[in-house]
Amino acid sequence: MKLHQYLPILDWGRTYSRTAFSNDMIAAVIVTIMLIPQSLAYALLAGLPPEAGIYASIAPIILYAIFGTSRALAVGPVAVVSLLTASALGQVAEQGTAGYAVAALTLAFLSGGFLVLLGVLRLGFLANFLSHPVIAGFITASGILIATSQLKHILGISAHGHTLPEMLASLFAHLGDINWITVALGAMATAFLFWVRKGLKPLMNRLGVSAKIADFATKAGPVAAVIVTTVSVWFFELDAQGVRIVGDVPQSLPPLTLPGFSPDLIQSLLMPAILISVIGFVESVSVAQTLAAKKRQRVDPNQELIGLGAANIGASFTGGYPVTGGFSRSVVNYDAGAETPAAGAYTAMGLAIAAMALTPLVYFLPNATLAATIIVAVLSLVDVSILKKTWGYSKSDFTAVAATILLTLGLGVEVGVASGVIISVLLHLFKTSRPHVAEVGLVPDTQHFRNIHRHTVETDPKIVTLRVDESLYFINARFLQEMILSRVTDGCDIEHVILMFSAVNEVDYSALESLEAINLRLTDMGIGLHLSEIKGPVMDRLKRSHLIRDLNGQIFLSQNDAWTVLTDRVCAAAE
Amino acid sequence: MKLHQYLPILDWGRTYSRTAFSNDMIAAVIVTIMLIPQSLAYALLAGLPPEAGIYASIAPIILYAIFGTSRALAVGPVAVVSLLTASALGQVAEQGTAGYAVAALTLAFLSGGFLVLLGVLRLGFLANFLSHPVIAGFITASGILIATSQLKHILGISAHGHTLPEMLASLFAHLGDINWITVALGAMATAFLFWVRKGLKPLMNRLGVSAKIADFATKAGPVAAVIVTTVSVWFFELDAQGVRIVGDVPQSLPPLTLPGFSPDLIQSLLMPAILISVIGFVESVSVAQTLAAKKRQRVDPNQELIGLGAANIGASFTGGYPVTGGFSRSVVNYDAGAETPAAGAYTAMGLAIAAMALTPLVYFLPNATLAATIIVAVLSLVDVSILKKTWGYSKSDFTAVAATILLTLGLGVEVGVASGVIISVLLHLFKTSRPHVAEVGLVPDTQHFRNIHRHTVETDPKIVTLRVDESLYFINARFLQEMILSRVTDGCDIEHVILMFSAVNEVDYSALESLEAINLRLTDMGIGLHLSEIKGPVMDRLKRSHLIRDLNGQIFLSQNDAWTVLTDRVCAAAE
Repeated sequence: MKLHQYLPILDWGRTYSRTAFSNDMIAAVIVTIMLIPQSLAYALLAGLPPEAGIYASIAPIILYAIFGTSRALAVGPVAVVSLLTASALGQVAEQGTAGYAVAALTLAFLSGGFLVLLGVLRLGFLANFLSHPVIAGFITASGILIATSQLKHILGISAHGHTLPEMLASLFAHLGDINWITVALGAMATAFLFWVRKGLKPLMNRLGVSAKIADFATKAGPVAAVIVTTVSVWFFELDAQGVRIVGDVPQSLPPLTLPGFSPDLIQSLLMPAILISVIGFVESVSVAQTLAAKKRQRVDPNQELIGLGAANIGASFTGGYPVTGGFSRSVVNYDAGAETPAAGAYTAMGLAIAAMALTPLVYFLPNATLAATIIVAVLSLVDVSILKKTWGYSKSDFTAVAATILLTLGLGVEVGVASGVIISVLLHLFKTSRPHVAEVGLVPDTQHFRNIHRHTVETDPKIVTLRVDESLYFINARFLQEMILSRVTDGCDIEHVILMFSAVNEVDYSALESLEAINLRLTDMGIGLHLSEIKGPVMDRLKRSHLIRDLNGQIFLSQNDAWTVLTDRVCAAAE
Repeated sequence: MKLHQYLPILDWGRTYSRTAFSNDMIAAVIVTIMLIPQSLAYALLAGLPPEAGIYASIAPIILYAIFGTSRALAVGPVAVVSLLTASALGQVAEQGTAGYAVAALTLAFLSGGFLVLLGVLRLGFLANFLSHPVIAGFITASGILIATSQLKHILGISAHGHTLPEMLASLFAHLGDINWITVALGAMATAFLFWVRKGLKPLMNRLGVSAKIADFATKAGPVAAVIVTTVSVWFFELDAQGVRIVGDVPQSLPPLTLPGFSPDLIQSLLMPAILISVIGFVESVSVAQTLAAKKRQRVDPNQELIGLGAANIGASFTGGYPVTGGFSRSVVNYDAGAETPAAGAYTAMGLAIAAMALTPLVYFLPNATLAATIIVAVLSLVDVSILKKTWGYSKSDFTAVAATILLTLGLGVEVGVASGVIISVLLHLFKTSRPHVAEVGLVPDTQHFRNIHRHTVETDPKIVTLRVDESLYFINARFLQEMILSRVTDGCDIEHVILMFSAVNEVDYSALESLEAINLRLTDMGIGLHLSEIKGPVMDRLKRSHLIRDLNGQIFLSQNDAWTVLTDRVCAAAE
């Protein structure tokens, strides 16, 4: 029975203690307070009614607690996935329609199903196609897009668009409709939240407030902004002045909902769902691994797929939308002392109570305040230093980052991230298409061979040793052939060519044919072809081919053996 | 002035001799005789009027003679490109309409333009994306498709379709319409041509006929079949019995034509044109290189792109359709003694005379005879032995071949070849995603380190040396991290981890971050992380990163240095 492998709850549930309970409970209270405004805000970003954000934090958290492996990860709506959701749904329905909300459920269901499928097939490694530069570029660009998308709420105007040029054009077109009261509220909320983030803690430190309280105050900042602006709107009746407010939010537990399964809807949402799954998974796993490493715990990526998949499927049946493990909420959960996934379950309970009891209180909450929370939160995602770092290290990584950022901003999130992946793969293939081939010689008094252009080494005019610095496969098979033949026609004294295979990790069928062609041509020219330092797995395969039988020279275990035998033979022939 | 680099004619033209002229002339006569039925047949395969095949052999040959670098390559319509043409044009127009012929010109123009573009940008290496298994699988499947597509002419019925199931279904549906006289003619022509190919030469050898004449007789086989069946149709008035014949072919030099440039047409033909260019280029270059190697001549792939591009653009303005360097015609040209591209120009003249004077003679030529020539020619392309060869060598190469064959047969040429390329790339990435990592030890009495599981080597329980057999990049960066950490937690005595980088040809930014993470984790665990045998280009890059500064251990030029220093240190610590 490997049941506990698929149900990690059986592991930690068995040893659940009183201390763990009280620690989890404290963490849950803190996280719940933080999540209420955040959930409303992200629902706004996704173009959904505010309660969808709260519903998306209840069932998913509980399901992740049962199936997930991270002890501190907090699952729910996050900024980037909300943006992706808005972009995907915008293509199939109008915001505010019933079709839009149903499409959100379908999107959550499809991405949950895809995650579970990947997990069951143990294909979690597919997420590695997203390289670090592509993720960094994508997150930065998404942060800029999200912040820009929220400007309309701060300005009190209508605007739309899924790319930066579209958003800016739409904002400019509606500049005449600015509601200055909304601007005042939004600007103050934004400024206040920035100050809470940057200035509050140092100030409290100077005032001698304990670090714990300072920390809590920082986290409660958004709640304070929500309370102050809500009361202001109510007291001054600002909603009558055109300030847009959250309005009626149903007072209920998450409803039972059914995603739409029309073939058209599924077809249009399948690719976005896959994209959302992969990006959500990558974000979630990196958060989970970072937190697990601090406590020497392990996260199983394939089980994480199942946990996140279950969470998304849960969201699709309870009025939510796609969710994933969020960075800020998980860090807060961890810092607040959560010990087990049970903390998540208590958070879910807290949010359920909020959904039933507190929703009337947010009636007068201005959208501008929610937009301000989002803007302040996502600007921390924007990190252009990755451009500088990759520029210094490798131009091809830089190209991948820059292309991902520009394409995400210019053509939207889906095109941006897909192009980023394709560009990274093509750049990698391009690099391997013209492998570095070093001509090597013996480092004196050792058995070690290095590049003749970088080290002082012994060489022999009758022997050319080429160290091929790349696996040989179809992309570079022809290049190798041309390179060796042109090197050999350069020097007329050459009697032996040794290919040093210490860095050749694979020889595919195309490369095998190239090696056979090289062998034939060198035989015609009276030159011996030898191979040295072939790795075990490569040799196993070559043994099954004709090459080994047809090779006009020898195969040596080490380059030093090849050198000793062939220089002796060359000397003997010269005498 | 590098003019002669772009106009190879200036090289060979300067030294053109009387002998070369007479050799070229003889080759041209032989090739012309062979090309007349072949050109008519391939036009039929492409769904175009027969004269298009002849026109496509005139201007293109001359333009290739000016811009191409191969001395023996013969450019014109070939089987696979004709099939691709039929498949592409079938999507935009009905066969026999004026739109179909104009689309053929546009296709030739687009593929010519794309080839010239690749050549000018020196991007010929892009053709390497087509691995040997994919090409072999694609050619075999195309041969089967082409032969099947010609069965309708042998049976005298109408049928259509671009995939094997479509073709077979269509043939079965029309079986009732079989014209038995056509079947008799077609079957006899096919049997005769097979016999000429397989049985005639041995027979003539036995009869003591000289090899040269036997060879010529073999090549003249199709011409004999054409003459005999044409005369039969004329004499017995078989066309009145429903035998389909070539009919009126205009008696003229290639006309001046203009490709269509409507945006819709260009959009639908662009992808097929790119595919045709790449496949035509790969076929052509491999023929050219094979022939050049026999005479120790060189073919410049980038200049070949320009030569073939010019040939296709020429075809588009002279009533032709996409062309490339053909295998059979080039081999005949070479065997007949062609010395320079001028042989091609004389062939073009011969065909021009044929187009003006001989076309009335093919009025009664039955389509079944042309179909027979095609069937016999393409069955030599079908080579399923590649399946067996790759199966024995590498399952992933086998998968690529098998997928290409099945998808080409089942879904058509375009899907087939595109999937083949994508599958090969994905299989390659998949292989590198879980690199082979060997734990190595010292081979006694040497300075050479090999896998502890394959060789008898010396090890030290306090030192783990891992030889990473793959370039480190985003696809495998996370895998490496997990692998090293799990190896280290296995043994509690470990004090040093040496990563031997002899087979690491690249460390990209994602892998750099992984190495930094590994270094941090090992530092936490009190384990030293050392690197050995880093290659020059990799070291150049690492020097620009933080890793070298932050590394808790040392960097060694050779693994032997690392071993000596660390075992001494370990011993010293033990004392």
